[in-house]
Amino acid sequence: MAIAGYLNNVRLTVAPPRSAIRNRKSAISRARWARIRLFAMDVDGILTDGTVRISSDGTESKSFSILDGMGLVRLNRCGVALAWISGRASGATTRRATELKIPHLIQGRTDKLAALQELAAQLHLQPAECAYMGDDDIDAPALAWAGIGASVPDAMPAALQAAGYITRRPAGRGAVREICEHILQARGQSSSR
Amino acid sequence: MAIAGYLNNVRLTVAPPRSAIRNRKSAISRARWARIRLFAMDVDGILTDGTVRISSDGTESKSFSILDGMGLVRLNRCGVALAWISGRASGATTRRATELKIPHLIQGRTDKLAALQELAAQLHLQPAECAYMGDDDIDAPALAWAGIGASVPDAMPAALQAAGYITRRPAGRGAVREICEHILQARGQSSSR
Amino acid sequence: MAIAGYLNNVRLTVAPPRSAIRNRKSAISRARWARIRLFAMDVDGILTDGTVRISSDGTESKSFSILDGMGLVRLNRCGVALAWISGRASGATTRRATELKIPHLIQGRTDKLAALQELAAQLHLQPAECAYMGDDDIDAPALAWAGIGASVPDAMPAALQAAGYITRRPAGRGAVREICEHILQARGQSSSR
Amino acid sequence: MAIAGYLNNVRLTVAPPRSAIRNRKSAISRARWARIRLFAMDVDGILTDGTVRISSDGTESKSFSILDGMGLVRLNRCGVALAWISGRASGATTRRATELKIPHLIQGRTDKLAALQELAAQLHLQPAECAYMGDDDIDAPALAWAGIGASVPDAMPAALQAAGYITRRPAGRGAVREICEHILQARGQSSSR
Repeated sequence: MAIAGYLNNVRLTVAPPRSAIRNRKSAISRARWARIRLFAMDVDGILTDGTVRISSDGTESKSFSILDGMGLVRLNRCGVALAWISGRASGATTRRATELKIPHLIQGRTDKLAALQELAAQLHLQPAECAYMGDDDIDAPALAWAGIGASVPDAMPAALQAAGYITRRPAGRGAVREICEHILQARGQSSSR
Repeated sequence: MAIAGYLNNVRLTVAPPRSAIRNRKSAISRARWARIRLFAMDVDGILTDGTVRISSDGTESKSFSILDGMGLVRLNRCGVALAWISGRASGATTRRATELKIPHLIQGRTDKLAALQELAAQLHLQPAECAYMGDDDIDAPALAWAGIGASVPDAMPAALQAAGYITRRPAGRGAVREICEHILQARGQSSSR
Repeated sequence: MAIAGYLNNVRLTVAPPRSAIRNRKSAISRARWARIRLFAMDVDGILTDGTVRISSDGTESKSFSILDGMGLVRLNRCGVALAWISGRASGATTRRATELKIPHLIQGRTDKLAALQELAAQLHLQPAECAYMGDDDIDAPALAWAGIGASVPDAMPAALQAAGYITRRPAGRGAVREICEHILQARGQSSSR
Repeated sequence: MAIAGYLNNVRLTVAPPRSAIRNRKSAISRARWARIRLFAMDVDGILTDGTVRISSDGTESKSFSILDGMGLVRLNRCGVALAWISGRASGATTRRATELKIPHLIQGRTDKLAALQELAAQLHLQPAECAYMGDDDIDAPALAWAGIGASVPDAMPAALQAAGYITRRPAGRGAVREICEHILQARGQSSSR
């Protein structure tokens, strides 16, 4: 079999051109961003690239973005409530949430919409005051319910369909920061401070 | 030597345009997906990006996709048999398989076709009821034998040639989930719940 | 919902085409590079890709580029002062700085401009003798003050705007080496030795 | 400052189009590949993506490709001598070399050409019988001396210039396997076995 000749015609693929859907989903008015009082988000595939690293010694680890962390700290300082809602409990997630002082850390719940609605009720917030970010199909109902539902370029189709905003930056590499910037800007907070 | 001027003409390359072969290999009928009763797959380069991280303290680790995990858990729940067949034993693989409750974990076998055929016989399944996924040339015979042989964009040429389906998502970043979705859809399982 | 058909129209996105801004920012004269006596830089998102890996056992880790390390060692040997200025203290950063014998390691300061100015004063250097590299908006004032302010392709908008040079190589994958090469070339140091 | 509007015009960049230089460097005759008796290579940036992960607990780790490992094991079996020549000693490198039974592991030498020539002399081999692979400028003399000098797409300019072959696959993701396949093919070894 002439593998060598064959090899010449095959090219590695990691990053295809961006889908049309993405460009249609980036126009949300400043007024809508300004109403947000709670920013809730999924963890895996939003705050991370969706992978979990498993070690032979039993530990697990995840990569988080420093840009995202900076954005969340600023929102927290401005009084915007923050929540991480994950279907899967993880020691790495708990540690990062503690470091960033995330006030609402909810793990082990795959019924994201119910978890989000309970938290909104507890904080006396309307859907239009809530932003939610998720990448998988179990996030779709929460994405549709929230005033602003945001997803990431590599999300599953149901999440992309339910979301009203698709970030330019990839998950775990500044996608959350992008949402933070919109909220901070709309509130008139200089992002450079 | 004028390195600086030279530098200006060199550009980093990670992601070339996708090969034509890939686009030709995505049309498998719903009826064929619906027949699948066993989904067997290689581990490195399919459930991971094909790299293994080696630490100076002797541990090794691998990155797995949360999207893939969700798909496999759903297939398991629907009664589709799952098998991981790896040529190389790894503590990280064993831990992830345990976490996802993969019923058939076969490590240390490079004769993938024989391993797959033995498992199919044990489960009383015909080739058309088996899907197999692999990325290297030692996977090619199993890819050709299975009713549906799937591979990933960055696979070795022999695997790309033997496969009938090439995923859009890269290995370790949702490639396995893509296959799970096809099987679930064909079985009439709503992927969103 | 016809997810399968939908799936066919969605494409993963990691790497969009480079922005026009980048190409406009690569022409800095040899004379300006030759004046540099201090090369100060942010750590996360410059010497790394901006992610920090958090493990369930409490350790954290970061990936550094061997190409960058080689460039910094050479600059050090030529008598160019080197400084790492990070807003966040990290054991991983300290270890890498020690390995590369970075003379000025400043952690826990988000007032980058003040930190840079203090160091320049201590070394009796003018702004035109300082190069600074950063990727976030808190780096912008230092980028604007330094004789050469450099940033990376994936930086935040305020950093891209303030920088006079945008590297071709990504952060954590040779971006710092690219700056080192310009300085070494301008000083007439053969980069191949 | 209108960061939000600005943000819309900035796009993340990881993977630019491939350089023309790369396409000019892939035509090496089967006869030349068939002469190779020693395949020596740099480690960081060839067998890895050029990054080293530093942990706060003092360990360091590197990612190696399973595809590369398979290729090296096959070459070893065919009697082709293998050598890893690294400028920097690393426990992670030693462990991977041991696992793959690499016969010649040379660490802590930046004079790559001298190290390669000593090994070739010891094995009684001519330059035309040696393939060398490296990505940085200190590899350039060895790349020029060896019968076949190979480099990777993201290599430093001096290495790209000195190399006669540039791989299609990136470093740490099958670049070494690509060279192994050429040698195996030229020797008439079926790559699928």
